[in-house]
Amino acid sequence: MQRKSFENMPCPIARSLERVGEWWSMLIMRDALHGFRRFDEFQKSLGIAPNILTRRLEALVEAGLLERRRYSEHPPRDEYVPTPRGRDLRPVLWSLVAWGNRHFAPEGAAVVLLDAETGAVADPILVDRNTGRPITEADHVLAAGPAAPASTRRRYAAVAGAAPAVRAEPASSGRQRTARKRSSP
Amino acid sequence: MQRKSFENMPCPIARSLERVGEWWSMLIMRDALHGFRRFDEFQKSLGIAPNILTRRLEALVEAGLLERRRYSEHPPRDEYVPTPRGRDLRPVLWSLVAWGNRHFAPEGAAVVLLDAETGAVADPILVDRNTGRPITEADHVLAAGPAAPASTRRRYAAVAGAAPAVRAEPASSGRQRTARKRSSP
Repeated sequence: MQRKSFENMPCPIARSLERVGEWWSMLIMRDALHGFRRFDEFQKSLGIAPNILTRRLEALVEAGLLERRRYSEHPPRDEYVPTPRGRDLRPVLWSLVAWGNRHFAPEGAAVVLLDAETGAVADPILVDRNTGRPITEADHVLAAGPAAPASTRRRYAAVAGAAPAVRAEPASSGRQRTARKRSSP
Repeated sequence: MQRKSFENMPCPIARSLERVGEWWSMLIMRDALHGFRRFDEFQKSLGIAPNILTRRLEALVEAGLLERRRYSEHPPRDEYVPTPRGRDLRPVLWSLVAWGNRHFAPEGAAVVLLDAETGAVADPILVDRNTGRPITEADHVLAAGPAAPASTRRRYAAVAGAAPAVRAEPASSGRQRTARKRSSP
Protein backbone atom coordinates (compact mmCIF):
# COMPACT_ATOMS: atom_id res chain seq x y z
CA MET A 1 0.00 0.00 0.00
CA GLN A 2 1.36 3.39 -0.92
CA ARG A 3 0.22 5.43 2.00
CA LYS A 4 1.96 8.10 3.96
CA SER A 5 1.33 9.05 7.55
CA PHE A 6 -0.80 12.12 7.98
CA GLU A 7 0.38 12.48 11.56
CA ASN A 8 2.89 15.12 10.58
CA MET A 9 0.41 17.12 8.55
CA PRO A 10 -0.85 20.11 10.49
CA CYS A 11 -4.29 20.09 8.85
CA PRO A 12 -6.97 19.02 11.34
CA ILE A 13 -8.81 17.17 8.58
CA ALA A 14 -5.70 15.12 7.84
CA ARG A 15 -5.09 14.41 11.51
CA SER A 16 -8.68 13.38 12.01
CA LEU A 17 -8.54 11.05 9.04
CA GLU A 18 -5.39 9.52 10.47
CA ARG A 19 -7.69 8.24 13.24
CA VAL A 20 -10.87 7.39 11.41
CA GLY A 21 -10.16 7.90 7.71
CA GLU A 22 -10.87 4.36 6.81
CA TRP A 23 -14.23 2.81 6.14
CA TRP A 24 -14.21 0.20 8.85
CA SER A 25 -13.07 2.57 11.58
CA MET A 26 -15.92 4.96 10.93
CA LEU A 27 -18.47 2.13 10.80
CA ILE A 28 -17.10 0.61 13.99
CA MET A 29 -17.51 4.00 15.65
CA ARG A 30 -21.03 4.21 14.22
CA ASP A 31 -21.88 0.93 15.94
CA ALA A 32 -19.99 1.76 19.13
CA LEU A 33 -21.84 5.07 19.41
CA HIS A 34 -25.05 3.18 18.86
CA GLY A 35 -24.29 1.06 21.91
CA PHE A 36 -22.51 -2.01 20.58
CA ARG A 37 -19.72 -3.05 22.92
CA ARG A 38 -18.55 -6.54 22.19
CA PHE A 39 -16.43 -8.08 19.50
CA ASP A 40 -19.25 -10.37 18.40
CA GLU A 41 -21.70 -7.48 18.15
CA PHE A 42 -19.38 -5.53 15.86
CA GLN A 43 -18.56 -8.63 13.90
CA LYS A 44 -22.16 -9.53 13.31
CA SER A 45 -23.20 -5.99 12.48
CA LEU A 46 -20.39 -5.34 10.02
CA GLY A 47 -19.68 -8.77 8.56
CA ILE A 48 -16.02 -7.86 8.91
CA ALA A 49 -13.15 -10.34 8.97
CA PRO A 50 -12.12 -10.97 12.60
CA ASN A 51 -8.46 -10.10 12.05
CA ILE A 52 -9.39 -6.77 10.50
CA LEU A 53 -11.85 -6.01 13.28
CA THR A 54 -9.18 -6.80 15.88
CA ARG A 55 -6.74 -4.47 14.18
CA ARG A 56 -9.22 -1.63 13.80
CA LEU A 57 -10.40 -1.90 17.40
CA GLU A 58 -6.76 -1.74 18.55
CA ALA A 59 -6.19 1.36 16.43
CA LEU A 60 -9.28 3.06 17.80
CA VAL A 61 -8.21 2.28 21.38
CA GLU A 62 -4.73 3.61 20.61
CA ALA A 63 -6.17 6.79 19.09
CA GLY A 64 -8.20 7.34 22.24
CA LEU A 65 -11.64 6.91 20.67
CA LEU A 66 -12.52 3.65 22.40
CA GLU A 67 -11.65 2.36 25.85
CA ARG A 68 -11.08 -1.34 26.44
CA ARG A 69 -12.84 -2.79 29.47
CA ARG A 70 -12.53 -6.34 30.73
CA TYR A 71 -15.96 -7.77 31.32
CA SER A 72 -15.09 -11.43 31.80
CA GLU A 73 -12.02 -13.07 33.31
CA HIS A 74 -12.86 -16.67 32.39
CA PRO A 75 -12.63 -16.60 29.48
CA PRO A 76 -10.88 -13.21 29.18
CA ARG A 77 -13.17 -10.90 27.22
CA ASP A 78 -13.07 -7.17 26.63
CA GLU A 79 -15.68 -4.69 25.55
CA TYR A 80 -15.09 -1.40 23.82
CA VAL A 81 -16.66 1.79 25.09
CA PRO A 82 -16.48 5.18 23.36
CA THR A 83 -14.37 7.75 25.22
CA PRO A 84 -15.38 11.44 25.34
CA ARG A 85 -13.17 11.93 22.26
CA GLY A 86 -14.97 9.10 20.51
CA ARG A 87 -18.38 10.42 21.48
CA ASP A 88 -17.37 13.82 20.18
CA LEU A 89 -17.15 12.24 16.72
CA ARG A 90 -20.95 12.18 16.51
CA PRO A 91 -21.29 15.46 14.60
CA VAL A 92 -19.10 14.02 11.85
CA LEU A 93 -21.29 10.91 11.66
CA TRP A 94 -24.47 12.95 11.73
CA SER A 95 -23.11 15.12 8.92
CA LEU A 96 -22.34 11.97 6.94
CA VAL A 97 -25.87 10.69 7.54
CA ALA A 98 -27.35 13.93 6.25
CA TRP A 99 -25.09 14.03 3.20
CA GLY A 100 -25.68 10.36 2.42
CA ASN A 101 -29.43 10.76 2.68
CA ARG A 102 -29.41 13.78 0.40
CA HIS A 103 -27.30 12.19 -2.30
CA PHE A 104 -27.23 8.42 -2.09
CA ALA A 105 -30.69 7.34 -0.97
CA PRO A 106 -32.89 7.47 -4.09
CA GLU A 107 -35.26 4.95 -2.49
CA GLY A 108 -35.66 7.06 0.66
CA ALA A 109 -33.73 7.27 3.91
CA ALA A 110 -32.78 4.03 5.61
CA VAL A 111 -31.45 5.88 8.66
CA VAL A 112 -32.67 9.17 10.00
CA LEU A 113 -31.77 11.43 12.88
CA LEU A 114 -34.70 11.91 15.25
CA ASP A 115 -35.51 14.46 17.87
CA ALA A 116 -35.85 12.04 20.80
CA GLU A 117 -38.44 14.20 22.50
CA THR A 118 -40.84 14.69 19.59
CA GLY A 119 -39.86 11.82 17.29
CA ALA A 120 -39.64 14.30 14.41
CA VAL A 121 -36.92 13.84 11.83
CA ALA A 122 -34.15 16.37 12.44
CA ASP A 123 -32.34 18.12 9.61
CA PRO A 124 -28.82 18.79 10.89
CA ILE A 125 -27.11 21.96 9.73
CA LEU A 126 -23.97 23.60 11.05
CA VAL A 127 -24.18 26.96 12.75
CA ASP A 128 -21.59 29.07 14.51
CA ARG A 129 -22.03 28.54 18.24
CA ASN A 130 -20.87 32.11 18.86
CA THR A 131 -23.19 33.93 16.46
CA GLY A 132 -25.91 31.40 15.65
CA ARG A 133 -25.35 32.07 11.94
CA PRO A 134 -25.50 29.06 9.61
CA ILE A 135 -22.08 28.03 8.35
CA THR A 136 -22.13 28.44 4.57
CA GLU A 137 -19.52 28.55 1.87
CA ALA A 138 -20.62 32.09 1.06
CA ASP A 139 -20.10 33.38 4.59
CA HIS A 140 -17.33 31.21 6.00
CA VAL A 141 -13.88 30.21 4.93
CA LEU A 142 -11.12 27.95 6.15
CA ALA A 143 -7.94 29.83 6.98
CA ALA A 144 -4.54 29.25 8.52
CA GLY A 145 -4.74 29.22 12.31
CA PRO A 146 -2.30 30.48 14.92
CA ALA A 147 -0.27 27.26 14.90
CA ALA A 148 -0.12 26.97 11.11
CA PRO A 149 3.28 26.29 9.58
CA ALA A 150 4.33 28.13 6.42
CA SER A 151 3.01 25.36 4.16
CA THR A 152 -0.47 25.70 5.64
CA ARG A 153 -0.31 29.47 5.45
CA ARG A 154 0.52 29.19 1.80
CA ARG A 155 -2.50 26.98 1.25
CA TYR A 156 -5.02 29.05 3.12
CA ALA A 157 -5.62 32.63 2.26
CA ALA A 158 -6.13 35.54 4.57
CA VAL A 159 -9.60 37.01 4.38
CA ALA A 160 -10.52 40.63 4.83
CA GLY A 161 -10.97 41.44 8.50
CA ALA A 162 -9.24 38.29 9.74
CA ALA A 163 -7.52 38.64 13.08
CA PRO A 164 -3.73 39.02 12.75
CA ALA A 165 -3.20 35.65 14.42
CA VAL A 166 -4.89 33.85 11.57
CA ARG A 167 -3.75 36.10 8.75
CA ALA A 168 -1.69 34.27 6.14
CA GLU A 169 1.60 35.76 5.05
CA PRO A 170 1.10 38.44 2.38
CA ALA A 171 3.21 36.66 -0.22
CA SER A 172 0.72 33.85 -0.59
CA SER A 173 -2.59 35.57 -0.13
CA GLY A 174 -2.96 36.92 -3.66
CA ARG A 175 -2.65 33.60 -5.41
CA GLN A 176 -4.76 31.78 -2.90
CA ARG A 177 -7.51 34.34 -2.87
CA THR A 178 -7.77 33.94 -6.62
CA ALA A 179 -7.84 30.20 -6.27
CA ARG A 180 -10.59 30.31 -3.73
CA LYS A 181 -12.64 32.69 -5.80
CA ARG A 182 -12.79 30.09 -8.53
CA SER A 183 -14.42 27.66 -6.15
CA SER A 184 -17.47 29.80 -5.60
CA PRO A 185 -20.61 28.63 -7.36
CA MET B 1 -7.12 -6.09 0.20
CA GLN B 2 -9.98 -7.58 2.14
CA ARG B 3 -12.62 -5.02 1.53
CA LYS B 4 -16.26 -5.38 0.73
CA SER B 5 -18.40 -2.95 -1.16
CA PHE B 6 -20.60 -0.79 1.00
CA GLU B 7 -22.78 0.06 -1.98
CA ASN B 8 -25.34 -2.50 -0.95
CA MET B 9 -25.47 -1.34 2.64
CA PRO B 10 -28.50 0.84 3.28
CA CYS B 11 -26.78 2.95 5.96
CA PRO B 12 -26.13 6.50 4.69
CA ILE B 13 -22.84 6.57 6.56
CA ALA B 14 -21.68 3.46 4.74
CA ARG B 15 -22.82 4.81 1.38
CA SER B 16 -21.09 8.11 2.00
CA LEU B 17 -17.88 6.38 2.97
CA GLU B 18 -18.10 4.36 -0.23
CA ARG B 19 -17.48 7.68 -1.99
CA VAL B 20 -15.08 9.45 0.30
CA GLY B 21 -14.13 6.96 3.02
CA GLU B 22 -10.51 6.95 2.17
CA TRP B 23 -7.93 9.46 3.29
CA TRP B 24 -6.86 10.73 -0.07
CA SER B 25 -10.37 11.24 -1.37
CA MET B 26 -11.31 13.44 1.54
CA LEU B 27 -8.09 15.44 1.29
CA ILE B 28 -8.54 15.85 -2.47
CA MET B 29 -12.04 17.20 -1.77
CA ARG B 30 -10.58 19.49 0.89
CA ASP B 31 -8.25 20.97 -1.71
CA ALA B 32 -10.88 21.03 -4.47
CA LEU B 33 -13.28 22.88 -2.18
CA HIS B 34 -10.48 25.28 -1.38
CA GLY B 35 -10.19 26.13 -5.06
CA PHE B 36 -7.52 23.79 -6.40
CA ARG B 37 -8.45 22.55 -9.88
CA ARG B 38 -5.49 21.04 -11.64
CA PHE B 39 -3.64 17.79 -11.33
CA ASP B 40 -0.40 19.57 -10.50
CA GLU B 41 -2.04 21.64 -7.78
CA PHE B 42 -3.42 18.55 -6.05
CA GLN B 43 -0.17 16.72 -6.55
CA LYS B 44 1.91 19.48 -5.04
CA SER B 45 -0.48 20.07 -2.16
CA LEU B 46 -0.80 16.43 -1.18
CA GLY B 47 2.54 14.93 -2.15
CA ILE B 48 0.55 12.02 -3.51
CA ALA B 49 1.81 9.50 -6.06
CA PRO B 50 0.50 10.46 -9.53
CA ASN B 51 -1.08 7.07 -10.22
CA ILE B 52 -3.00 7.20 -6.94
CA LEU B 53 -4.10 10.76 -7.60
CA THR B 54 -5.32 9.78 -11.07
CA ARG B 55 -7.32 6.89 -9.63
CA ARG B 56 -8.85 8.92 -6.82
CA LEU B 57 -9.82 11.78 -9.16
CA GLU B 58 -11.50 9.26 -11.47
CA ALA B 59 -13.42 7.79 -8.55
CA LEU B 60 -14.56 11.22 -7.35
CA VAL B 61 -15.73 12.09 -10.88
CA GLU B 62 -17.55 8.76 -11.10
CA ALA B 63 -19.21 9.34 -7.72
CA GLY B 64 -20.42 12.73 -8.91
CA LEU B 65 -18.39 14.83 -6.50
CA LEU B 66 -16.08 16.37 -9.10
CA GLU B 67 -16.70 17.35 -12.70
CA ARG B 68 -13.94 17.04 -15.30
CA ARG B 69 -13.48 20.06 -17.55
CA ARG B 70 -11.08 20.30 -20.46
CA TYR B 71 -9.10 23.51 -20.18
CA SER B 72 -6.42 22.85 -22.78
CA GLU B 73 -6.55 20.92 -26.05
CA HIS B 74 -2.84 21.01 -26.88
CA PRO B 75 -1.71 19.35 -24.76
CA PRO B 76 -5.00 17.83 -23.53
CA ARG B 77 -5.48 18.88 -19.91
CA ASP B 78 -8.47 18.62 -17.57
CA GLU B 79 -9.35 20.39 -14.42
CA TYR B 80 -11.60 19.11 -11.67
CA VAL B 81 -14.42 21.23 -10.31
CA PRO B 82 -16.65 20.32 -7.34
CA THR B 83 -20.24 19.55 -8.30
CA PRO B 84 -23.15 20.62 -6.07
CA ARG B 85 -22.92 17.16 -4.46
CA GLY B 86 -19.22 17.70 -3.85
CA ARG B 87 -19.77 21.18 -2.44
CA ASP B 88 -22.41 19.76 -0.15
CA LEU B 89 -19.66 17.71 1.52
CA ARG B 90 -18.40 20.87 3.26
CA PRO B 91 -20.31 20.30 6.51
CA VAL B 92 -18.53 16.95 6.89
CA LEU B 93 -15.15 18.62 6.36
CA TRP B 94 -16.01 21.45 8.72
CA SER B 95 -17.06 18.91 11.35
CA LEU B 96 -13.74 17.12 10.87
CA VAL B 97 -11.87 20.41 11.27
CA ALA B 98 -13.66 21.14 14.53
CA TRP B 99 -13.11 17.63 15.88
CA GLY B 100 -9.46 17.60 14.82
CA ASN B 101 -8.83 20.97 16.44
CA ARG B 102 -10.44 19.88 19.67
CA HIS B 103 -8.54 16.62 19.96
CA PHE B 104 -5.42 16.54 17.85
CA ALA B 105 -3.96 20.03 17.93
CA PRO B 106 -2.09 20.31 21.24
CA GLU B 107 0.07 23.07 19.79
CA GLY B 108 -2.96 25.13 18.70
CA ALA B 109 -5.09 25.15 15.57
CA ALA B 110 -3.32 25.09 12.22
CA VAL B 111 -6.58 25.60 10.34
CA VAL B 112 -9.63 27.45 11.56
CA LEU B 113 -13.04 28.23 10.19
CA LEU B 114 -13.60 31.99 9.93
CA ASP B 115 -16.67 34.12 9.64
CA ALA B 116 -15.74 35.82 6.38
CA GLU B 117 -17.55 38.99 7.33
CA THR B 118 -16.04 39.58 10.75
CA GLY B 119 -12.90 37.44 10.57
CA ALA B 120 -13.85 35.87 13.89
CA VAL B 121 -13.15 32.19 14.42
CA ALA B 122 -16.39 30.22 14.08
CA ASP B 123 -17.23 27.27 16.32
CA PRO B 124 -19.37 24.96 14.20
CA ILE B 125 -22.09 23.00 15.97
CA LEU B 126 -24.98 21.05 14.50
CA VAL B 127 -28.51 22.24 15.05
CA ASP B 128 -31.82 21.01 13.73
CA ARG B 129 -32.83 23.28 10.86
CA ASN B 130 -36.49 22.74 11.75
CA THR B 131 -36.35 23.57 15.46
CA GLY B 132 -33.05 25.38 15.92
CA ARG B 133 -32.21 23.00 18.78
CA PRO B 134 -28.59 21.83 19.03
CA ILE B 135 -28.17 18.21 18.00
CA THR B 136 -26.90 16.32 21.03
CA GLU B 137 -26.60 12.69 21.99
CA ALA B 138 -28.96 13.36 24.88
CA ASP B 139 -31.72 14.78 22.69
CA HIS B 140 -31.26 13.05 19.36
CA VAL B 141 -30.97 9.50 18.17
CA LEU B 142 -30.37 7.68 14.93
CA ALA B 143 -33.25 5.46 13.92
CA ALA B 144 -34.38 3.31 11.03
CA GLY B 145 -35.92 5.44 8.28
CA PRO B 146 -38.84 4.73 5.95
CA ALA B 147 -36.65 2.87 3.45
CA ALA B 148 -34.83 0.78 6.03
CA PRO B 149 -34.59 -2.96 5.38
CA ALA B 150 -35.14 -5.40 8.23
CA SER B 151 -31.42 -5.54 9.04
CA THR B 152 -31.32 -1.80 9.60
CA ARG B 153 -34.52 -1.88 11.63
CA ARG B 154 -32.96 -4.50 13.83
CA ARG B 155 -29.94 -2.26 14.40
CA TYR B 156 -31.78 0.93 15.13
CA ALA B 157 -34.30 1.14 17.87
CA ALA B 158 -37.62 2.90 17.87
CA VAL B 159 -37.78 5.80 20.26
CA ALA B 160 -40.80 6.91 22.21
CA GLY B 161 -42.93 9.18 20.11
CA ALA B 162 -41.27 8.27 16.83
CA ALA B 163 -43.51 8.51 13.79
CA PRO B 164 -44.78 5.10 12.64
CA ALA B 165 -42.80 5.41 9.42
CA VAL B 166 -39.53 5.34 11.30
CA ARG B 167 -40.55 2.94 14.06
CA ALA B 168 -38.49 -0.24 14.16
CA GLU B 169 -40.27 -3.55 14.32
CA PRO B 170 -41.28 -4.40 17.88
CA ALA B 171 -39.27 -7.61 18.01
CA SER B 172 -35.97 -5.73 17.91
CA SER B 173 -36.71 -2.59 19.84
CA GLY B 174 -36.26 -3.97 23.33
CA ARG B 175 -32.76 -5.26 22.84
CA GLN B 176 -31.66 -2.23 20.89
CA ARG B 177 -33.05 0.25 23.35
CA THR B 178 -31.03 -1.43 26.05
CA ALA B 179 -27.96 -1.35 23.88
CA ARG B 180 -28.34 2.33 23.17
CA LYS B 181 -28.89 3.15 26.79
CA ARG B 182 -25.48 1.82 27.60
CA SER B 183 -23.91 4.35 25.24
CA SER B 184 -25.10 7.34 27.21
CA PRO B 185 -22.46 9.05 29.32
